[in-house]
Amino acid sequence: MMAPDPIRLSLRMYDLLIHNAWMVTVNAQGDVIPDGMIGIHGDVIAHIGPTPPDAPLPAARETIDAGQGIVLPGLVNAHTHLPMTVFRGMADDLPLQAWLTDHIFPAEATHITPDTVHWGTLLGCAEMLLAGITTCCDGYFLEDAVALAVAMTGMRAVLGQGVIDFPAPGVPDPAENVQTAAAFVRQWKHRSPLITPSIFCHSPYTCSDKTLAHAKAAAADEGVLFQIHVAETREEITADGGRPPNGSLTARLAQLGLLDADTLLVHGVWFSPTDIERVAQNGCGIAHCPESNMKLAAGIAPVPAFLQAGIPVGIGSDGCASNNNQDLLREMDMAAKLHKVAGGGPTAMPAPQVLAMATRDGARAIGLGDHTGTIEKGKQADLVILDSTHPAMCPIYNPVSQAVYAGSGDVVRDTIVAGRVRVRNRTLVDSPIDGIMKQVRAIGRAIGKPPIHRPIADTEKGSCS
Amino acid sequence: MMAPDPIRLSLRMYDLLIHNAWMVTVNAQGDVIPDGMIGIHGDVIAHIGPTPPDAPLPAARETIDAGQGIVLPGLVNAHTHLPMTVFRGMADDLPLQAWLTDHIFPAEATHITPDTVHWGTLLGCAEMLLAGITTCCDGYFLEDAVALAVAMTGMRAVLGQGVIDFPAPGVPDPAENVQTAAAFVRQWKHRSPLITPSIFCHSPYTCSDKTLAHAKAAAADEGVLFQIHVAETREEITADGGRPPNGSLTARLAQLGLLDADTLLVHGVWFSPTDIERVAQNGCGIAHCPESNMKLAAGIAPVPAFLQAGIPVGIGSDGCASNNNQDLLREMDMAAKLHKVAGGGPTAMPAPQVLAMATRDGARAIGLGDHTGTIEKGKQADLVILDSTHPAMCPIYNPVSQAVYAGSGDVVRDTIVAGRVRVRNRTLVDSPIDGIMKQVRAIGRAIGKPPIHRPIADTEKGSCS
Repeated sequence: MMAPDPIRLSLRMYDLLIHNAWMVTVNAQGDVIPDGMIGIHGDVIAHIGPTPPDAPLPAARETIDAGQGIVLPGLVNAHTHLPMTVFRGMADDLPLQAWLTDHIFPAEATHITPDTVHWGTLLGCAEMLLAGITTCCDGYFLEDAVALAVAMTGMRAVLGQGVIDFPAPGVPDPAENVQTAAAFVRQWKHRSPLITPSIFCHSPYTCSDKTLAHAKAAAADEGVLFQIHVAETREEITADGGRPPNGSLTARLAQLGLLDADTLLVHGVWFSPTDIERVAQNGCGIAHCPESNMKLAAGIAPVPAFLQAGIPVGIGSDGCASNNNQDLLREMDMAAKLHKVAGGGPTAMPAPQVLAMATRDGARAIGLGDHTGTIEKGKQADLVILDSTHPAMCPIYNPVSQAVYAGSGDVVRDTIVAGRVRVRNRTLVDSPIDGIMKQVRAIGRAIGKPPIHRPIADTEKGSCS
Repeated sequence: MMAPDPIRLSLRMYDLLIHNAWMVTVNAQGDVIPDGMIGIHGDVIAHIGPTPPDAPLPAARETIDAGQGIVLPGLVNAHTHLPMTVFRGMADDLPLQAWLTDHIFPAEATHITPDTVHWGTLLGCAEMLLAGITTCCDGYFLEDAVALAVAMTGMRAVLGQGVIDFPAPGVPDPAENVQTAAAFVRQWKHRSPLITPSIFCHSPYTCSDKTLAHAKAAAADEGVLFQIHVAETREEITADGGRPPNGSLTARLAQLGLLDADTLLVHGVWFSPTDIERVAQNGCGIAHCPESNMKLAAGIAPVPAFLQAGIPVGIGSDGCASNNNQDLLREMDMAAKLHKVAGGGPTAMPAPQVLAMATRDGARAIGLGDHTGTIEKGKQADLVILDSTHPAMCPIYNPVSQAVYAGSGDVVRDTIVAGRVRVRNRTLVDSPIDGIMKQVRAIGRAIGKPPIHRPIADTEKGSCS
């Protein structure tokens, strides 16, 4: 056989061509191409560059005119609990313990089944695709049902089967928690190019040292990501019963062998400078969930210090019961503004840095940095087109700050995952959204309607009248 | 003539009937009607109540099926600078002084003309109507051009001509600032039922005591709202040159006669407990602008203390150069979450209270409490219908927290101002949005493209690779 002809190779027709947009690459140089063009072969970005002014567009099976909008790498939601989409708005404005023990835990015990997990996951994925999220990193129980549903939507995902030292949906006997998670990983390891299995330990306060070490060992054996909630609330630090050596939660985790580059720490709100140094030295990623942390009044994570220390930090929406949406464009805006007012000043966490967290750095934090998170040749074709006809997208001085500060899921026109158009002109291409919502509404009715939320009386709220 | 027949009167056909929705009245009792019906005569709400289960719907010239969505009072944006919509995203992530003196002030001096004010205002109003905002309270220069544009859109607005002791667009000689504002008020006082003129002093640090007192006296003479930015930044308090008696800015304002129920104080970020008590005793309203305060790192206003003291507090987006959108549903979410994490805890500023701020209390703060802000018989028919087919609106356990925590401008389906449908099925009914955006894009190009925003290098931002 002859070697392939390089000229013919370069002329191979693209499967998909996107042009007429600001291309925000989020590459290491932060290149933005004002009138750019992306050529895609199969699921891979084959070309990114300026559109030649005086030449016809290259041939492609499909050409998408981005209408002078903004193209970003597909957003990476670094922390979700997809099935909890069925709990959206079930319990709000409550003290943390009442929220968890009176509402979330009982609802999970009663209502989380393979069926509710299926529909909640489908709705969560639909919401995320419509908001420009092409990848999420999930952790929950009955994760096999999550994986089946995610696979139906065509999203990219890292999916972690939950491990906790209590009976959980699908794992009635906690003694089987780690082996159930390991079995999930083996089952999904080579099943779909878009789904990467993982193990998700709930937290250091709901898992024994033995469970934590076994679960991490199982993840390491399979070479997959290990996820864990850490230091979300102040109580978690102060009430840790003297267990951690040196009074530090991360020292305990390090001693158990949990901290390495294949571990994603979620929250880290109460990390001390020593914790941050330890996390950085061990190469862990962090998922920052600003809206959830704010809504539950958990605290403000020291994200500028994470970044300063060299930790890859992603942004996560967290579950829908503590947010109550899964819109990473809004989450970026919230993150940038929160850390400015929380002491960083107006130059803290500028738009390009926040966008990198929601794309490139989030992808690295969840172990997919080689595959997604930037618009670069050879990367997966995970892309979002922001709609230049939305009023909030006018005028455009700077596409990066436009996306971060003016955008929301509302401005997403098209979403492409692995070269496949999943949202076209604000509509899901192959997902029966009406049917999904009908099912989730029925689940909501079964979970039950709490009493109508009444505002506190005028006198209490300080009416002047 | 015979007296009108009360039965025939009650049977008068509605001009507009809205049914099949959760009706969130935001009345004093916080009533929410799960399957409600609103009848409108002309521009007024004639009926609000449950839909009778076994009777046909009342006759109406037009009937809108709200599709089991959520109906809220039209949102009230308590602080805007509409023409600044043309500056959206022009300068971000900068120190406050550089932002103001190197970007905003020069751009205003060069680019604010009746023409740019016209198009910027039209775009701002389009953005707001599409996001469910039916009323705004604006302050800027060339406010006559603002008023003409707002009148074209059919929005309700309080519009304040700016007063500042420097040359300003349309007021080259500051000696004429108060008389220009008073002339604007007289001109617009009875011109449109939807437009209420006002006087807007920029701030205590850009206006002399004499100017402040004269401007307030002029507003009082005309019986209109007096608006002023106060205590936005810490510097404004500490650098006030020893002018205020008792070291307090509000004491100075009180001494000048500025504080009464017809005054709207904007920001109040750095109000002390003494300031708050003084403001409450004098009956002033406050416009809280959380996103702007966060983005400029101005600080976190003590809103829970404002409410505790009985001050009517509205929510404002502020101008588009410091936000960078005009979406009050997002602003509500931001306000609720900010004050929870800033010390209030998870029960602080619950959803009903935040919604009241963005509707009823905001209307009171800007002097329109008798006209708009609640769904009550006799009030103006200013209404928003949230779209139950949006994924974020599913499931619905509690329509109030759904709107505040899950919603954004994205979920608005229809917007009605004074009984007129201005947005139907996410589309402006009678505003040529494409033409407006084309004009604003051209203005943006004239203002000039700053250098492309580049993210800081990987090494600087702490890359792990």
